Amino acid sequence: MSFDTLNELRGLLADMPTPDAAALQGAQDRNGQLTKPPGALGRLEDLAIWYAGWRGDARPAIEAPQVIVFAGNHGVAARGVSAFPPEVTVQMVANFEHGGAAINQLAKAFGARMDVVPLDLDTPTADFTAGPAMSEADVVAALRAGWDAVDTQADLLVVGEMGIGNTTSAAAIAARLFGGAAQDWTGRGTGVEGEALALKTGIVSDGLAAHADAGDGLDVLMRLGGRELAGMAGAIARARALSIPVIVDGFICTAAAACLEHTVAGALDHVVAGHQSAEGAHGRMLEALNKAPLLSLGLRLGEGSGAALAIGVLKGAVACHSGMATFAEAGVSDA
Amino acid sequence: MSFDTLNELRGLLADMPTPDAAALQGAQDRNGQLTKPPGALGRLEDLAIWYAGWRGDARPAIEAPQVIVFAGNHGVAARGVSAFPPEVTVQMVANFEHGGAAINQLAKAFGARMDVVPLDLDTPTADFTAGPAMSEADVVAALRAGWDAVDTQADLLVVGEMGIGNTTSAAAIAARLFGGAAQDWTGRGTGVEGEALALKTGIVSDGLAAHADAGDGLDVLMRLGGRELAGMAGAIARARALSIPVIVDGFICTAAAACLEHTVAGALDHVVAGHQSAEGAHGRMLEALNKAPLLSLGLRLGEGSGAALAIGVLKGAVACHSGMATFAEAGVSDA
Repeated sequence: MSFDTLNELRGLLADMPTPDAAALQGAQDRNGQLTKPPGALGRLEDLAIWYAGWRGDARPAIEAPQVIVFAGNHGVAARGVSAFPPEVTVQMVANFEHGGAAINQLAKAFGARMDVVPLDLDTPTADFTAGPAMSEADVVAALRAGWDAVDTQADLLVVGEMGIGNTTSAAAIAARLFGGAAQDWTGRGTGVEGEALALKTGIVSDGLAAHADAGDGLDVLMRLGGRELAGMAGAIARARALSIPVIVDGFICTAAAACLEHTVAGALDHVVAGHQSAEGAHGRMLEALNKAPLLSLGLRLGEGSGAALAIGVLKGAVACHSGMATFAEAGVSDA
Repeated sequence: MSFDTLNELRGLLADMPTPDAAALQGAQDRNGQLTKPPGALGRLEDLAIWYAGWRGDARPAIEAPQVIVFAGNHGVAARGVSAFPPEVTVQMVANFEHGGAAINQLAKAFGARMDVVPLDLDTPTADFTAGPAMSEADVVAALRAGWDAVDTQADLLVVGEMGIGNTTSAAAIAARLFGGAAQDWTGRGTGVEGEALALKTGIVSDGLAAHADAGDGLDVLMRLGGRELAGMAGAIARARALSIPVIVDGFICTAAAACLEHTVAGALDHVVAGHQSAEGAHGRMLEALNKAPLLSLGLRLGEGSGAALAIGVLKGAVACHSGMATFAEAGVSDA
């Protein structure tokens, strides 16, 4: 199963797996019998049941999480929208490959395999204020790189990104998908302020004007996105095809994911939000997608770091659900 | 180092270690050189630096976390303040010992050693509406059981509790320490509602009236607490003596910890709050102690479960701090 055009991907998205009803019911039944007051594990209970449904197993385990970090370069980076120079993208890819970045430590801490997928770093996307960031062939290639990067044996997926200039792209996508003005969605990214922030907001605004006629989420992704955003979207779609639950990361990752939801409603039903970024508009984006974040610890790094940290929460939820004794097994009096 | 009276413990609390200034400075310096935009790891950065200071190591690791669950029985349980009967305390202790409770799964998931300390379960504390819950000898014995339960080789401590009726005790402690009326601090615990909640609130109110002349935190602990609360307080104090950072759990655990802070200000400087409980007044208690919780996922179970879940956050923070490359090491351009 794969795709050569955006329309073929649209077809796949419209025909994706749903949770396993028997596993969902079995997990709900089991949850009610565990040695705790009803509801006392809060969101951990909902998470475990949700995970069980997607995995088709009323008593699942998380044994093979995968973290994939996609990297891409952006034409708009040349306009000075970031506090860091564009060469940092390739430098950080080397850092990922050598194990020196935050995401490497978090993947290791939570027992996740980590893959790095650099996408044509020497060919930045086009400046989206002047036309589409990518051709259809370009965006399909990046989506497929994401699709193909998912380990078919993974049981949990975290996607993250690196790409100097990509909060600008994500802000433009969010404004196009969710409405509102450029300034509603444009934030400090890695640390722009004052005039640089005004310039960044202006570029987002110009991008919105240049693509007022954009169509669905995948069209918006092609016009305003970047290769690493398309890679994340492709990986999230593939995870759905494989019934692998996904934890999305921050502002850029969520914008990429939103392109799927705005192509086919429900395309993110297998997705939970790991962490609410300190990037100002991320909370609004999560609200628009009706995804309550698991963590809110002020991270604004990207790389999948917030989502990777949330692997621990999901592992804890599933461990409780699948490992706890029932009232009957433990001989504990029920309420 | 130990104590035979509350006054001897007061003396110890007044002369406890502080963070290592050189390790704190070294950790701050290192944090500024890591391959990320300044501040991009949010609270993880503060946590790692705080942990480094207490461990006296600018580049620490978390390798030996310990979870201790204390259990005790309460005289007020006989008055119907809980949705569960008092025999559940001993049944749940057996469940902890057999590995069937939520805390067992979480301790295992985060690589923590787990110890269970039942405290005179066949001798409930006295009903605190009629007099002190414990004699000085009783509370000192429970505090020492906590003090002695801490593994001197641990590098992180989580304390939790089990004790039917103990949200009633914790509510009375909180009201006595922080002020306000019984209804400000009394909540549903494991699930009381309506008339049962009114009865519970009345008992807290009667306890406050009976102990209007209570003195410092340790005196409040003796009069309104329980053995498992004293055990937690003793363990938190011992961890401070050993410079072991502590993650406190929910409403009952925080009330026990607050007794130390209300004996000697600063006694909880080595403590972080793991999770804001769904027990209504826990948030107010954490605010009064100026402790922002790491997680807020609606748990209201006790056992140390919320704090154990937060071990993952702290491990992630320390892993990033100690494992990441610096800009110079990775050859990444700084901003």
